[in-house]
Amino acid sequence: MTSDINWQERYHAALIVTVRLRLVDVPGYLAEVLASIASVRTPLGDIRLIDVDGRFKTRDLQMFFIDEEHRDRTLEAIRRHDFAEILQVTDEVLEIHRGGAIETRSRHALDSLMDLRMIYTPGVASVCEKIHADPSCAWDYTGIAHRIAIVTNGTAVLGLGDIGPLASLPVMEGKAAILAYFVGVSAEPFLINSRDSDEIIDTVERCALNFGAIQIEDIAAPDCFVIESELQKRLDMPVFHDDQHGTATVCIAGLISALRQVGRSPSECRAVLSGAGAAGSAIARFLIDFGVQDVVVCDSVGAIYSGRPERMNAWKQDLAEVTNSERVQGTLAEVLPGRNLFIGVSRPNLVTQEMVASMGDKSIVFALANPVSEIAVADALEAGAAIALDGRGMNNALAYPGLFRGALDARAKTINREMMLATAERLADLAGEECLLPNMLDLEVHRSVAEAVRKAAVRSGATGEGR
Amino acid sequence: MTSDINWQERYHAALIVTVRLRLVDVPGYLAEVLASIASVRTPLGDIRLIDVDGRFKTRDLQMFFIDEEHRDRTLEAIRRHDFAEILQVTDEVLEIHRGGAIETRSRHALDSLMDLRMIYTPGVASVCEKIHADPSCAWDYTGIAHRIAIVTNGTAVLGLGDIGPLASLPVMEGKAAILAYFVGVSAEPFLINSRDSDEIIDTVERCALNFGAIQIEDIAAPDCFVIESELQKRLDMPVFHDDQHGTATVCIAGLISALRQVGRSPSECRAVLSGAGAAGSAIARFLIDFGVQDVVVCDSVGAIYSGRPERMNAWKQDLAEVTNSERVQGTLAEVLPGRNLFIGVSRPNLVTQEMVASMGDKSIVFALANPVSEIAVADALEAGAAIALDGRGMNNALAYPGLFRGALDARAKTINREMMLATAERLADLAGEECLLPNMLDLEVHRSVAEAVRKAAVRSGATGEGR
Repeated sequence: MTSDINWQERYHAALIVTVRLRLVDVPGYLAEVLASIASVRTPLGDIRLIDVDGRFKTRDLQMFFIDEEHRDRTLEAIRRHDFAEILQVTDEVLEIHRGGAIETRSRHALDSLMDLRMIYTPGVASVCEKIHADPSCAWDYTGIAHRIAIVTNGTAVLGLGDIGPLASLPVMEGKAAILAYFVGVSAEPFLINSRDSDEIIDTVERCALNFGAIQIEDIAAPDCFVIESELQKRLDMPVFHDDQHGTATVCIAGLISALRQVGRSPSECRAVLSGAGAAGSAIARFLIDFGVQDVVVCDSVGAIYSGRPERMNAWKQDLAEVTNSERVQGTLAEVLPGRNLFIGVSRPNLVTQEMVASMGDKSIVFALANPVSEIAVADALEAGAAIALDGRGMNNALAYPGLFRGALDARAKTINREMMLATAERLADLAGEECLLPNMLDLEVHRSVAEAVRKAAVRSGATGEGR
Repeated sequence: MTSDINWQERYHAALIVTVRLRLVDVPGYLAEVLASIASVRTPLGDIRLIDVDGRFKTRDLQMFFIDEEHRDRTLEAIRRHDFAEILQVTDEVLEIHRGGAIETRSRHALDSLMDLRMIYTPGVASVCEKIHADPSCAWDYTGIAHRIAIVTNGTAVLGLGDIGPLASLPVMEGKAAILAYFVGVSAEPFLINSRDSDEIIDTVERCALNFGAIQIEDIAAPDCFVIESELQKRLDMPVFHDDQHGTATVCIAGLISALRQVGRSPSECRAVLSGAGAAGSAIARFLIDFGVQDVVVCDSVGAIYSGRPERMNAWKQDLAEVTNSERVQGTLAEVLPGRNLFIGVSRPNLVTQEMVASMGDKSIVFALANPVSEIAVADALEAGAAIALDGRGMNNALAYPGLFRGALDARAKTINREMMLATAERLADLAGEECLLPNMLDLEVHRSVAEAVRKAAVRSGATGEGR
């Protein structure tokens, strides 16, 4: 088991390096090098043929490392072969982020005086006057119908925690790149250098005219709850907290597929959720709306129940009101036996094989902690889970691009439960026979989700006058 | 004279329309139509051949209208020809602004799982950690080295005045499109829904981490002065107010060229400046730094002098301290006689031919009021000006793209006088024999200005540690 978890850690390793290798062109030499790389347990990404001449073949090998020591050990293993020469070692991640992941472009060539006179003065004045006379025209004659802000203060970034707004910028740019590439939504990173929820709310409200929707990202709980709900009250546009709503939506999508595979209805689920942060509480609420009546949420001290004396706060108390109606008590290991659904958004390696084995028949295990899950998928399956998935198989990027595109296309004022459910159902429908979820690289998936979201927005009354 | 001013108003007309015209293909018919269009004094833009068949030629004619009545009158004049059929009338400006002038793009294709793992999680974590350990790395591994904010509250937009932030958005997007297309700078419109300078300053300061520089735009005086100077104090990056610094820079560029043509030195100039707003006061100060010792600034009540009893404020008093050392008094018409340089950034049709005629030998007239200048160029020349130019010939878009590109390339902390002067001198050097300024559509001009600015930034100490 240990070796599998190590392997998983390696797969989640953040160091992605391309090694340019020149090999004497003899059949079997590449295989020998790959065997050496495998011997130090270094996962490989793409292998690309770069150059061929009479004697040599040059290839780029992408590799994943935990740290620099791991990288050096791997390079050492390669160098032991006298037929292999390392020409170059490139940190691919740094290179792809050099200069940033996104850029602003003009949507039109500006090659003539007429172009300039229309895009800028004097022509632009007529557009301004039109919007001044009827502000709703801004939706048609500016970019707000495809522009959103990705708002963060960097207090809860990925698995990194509180690294502050500037260090979180590559994440926001990465997300913006995904939105641009997948669905043509123009997202702008919106770093706010503040830890005060009121300041953050006021700042976003004052700048909201630039945007058609707001994505809240990587802000620590419980501030993220206050910020999201207060902004949604004040603004006439969708305010979407990806760590809550995005994660919950993809989770429900996976659950729909999983329940179909095991032939169970939502009301037959007996769920345990590990993690009471932003994602955990959002998933718990979505589970209930989805029809799962029996949901117990655990935090670090165990099951949360109404009136629990220790480690409670207003948000956990709210959660306790709508979950765990039987007031189950005990640690995660104590409440898991006999239950058939585990969803973890908590900590690495929190769940043992014994705990999975204690679960009921045809159990479903979603171990979503990042970057290392509560239990490795292989271990959960070996321990008897019918279905197991980790965060790699359940990426928010399946949900938020289509959700935003659909919400903007509908000119929605909010992203409501119906739109999230439409996303989850469409994702489940688009998954193949073998998979719980479709391939997020398939642009058609995002287009299809956007269309489902747009229809759900109109149907559910998320649209309305004035936008 | 009247007809010329009317023509000028038409040329500045904001309604830009394309009329698709199908003409019987007989030599001379196009000329007849153009004569009819000229008879109602409608200026023409591009004429493009769209389709040719045996009997007809279809062309798109771009036309400028003052208002819809003017448009209808022109279409009526065309319809009088039985060989001409109007197929379509398109408001070109609205069409080019439909969906906005700019968009965010991913700088990389995201076609493989590896792309996603590098641009986003898990790879991106290593970039975040690098920046967390050394914040100055953000300059290399995010987009801030090419990203700026165009900050406005919409209180002084073009010639339109106080139309509020939302209605000003097309202007900000137009400017962003120019920056993107000309110099690859990613500019984001940054509308702030506030009329309180302190709120605006705090908001920009809180969000400044997203950007490498700040452009202040179309904020009314005197708030714009406070906002710009306070932000420049608080932020470790260039804060540039285009209405002040951009206008002044292009104006000095034109003046360098004009002085070369008439063979005069800055110290021999006796200048009158009409307009004491943001542009006027910035031009006055730049004129002095440039070596023009005799500068009189006029506002609506006449020459501003130290201790003037009426219509003064702190900003005008500051201006009075550094200009008009002889304490000249009187209206614009009274102070103009004998002076050899007039620069107007004030009101349409404020200057008569008689006033220009009263000026000294080889007088230079820059009539820059927008959209209609203080006096038409033709009228000024007819009245004896050696050189006359209006706002069309002196566009800020000649200065700010290269200034920002150069400042960012130098990683400058401010845009100082040396960088502005380098811009002005380079623009004057790049102007042809016949022109005062180069063609702003020539991308090489902006590259050359950027290089001059970058060098000036390094030379003058505008760069420094910590960015």
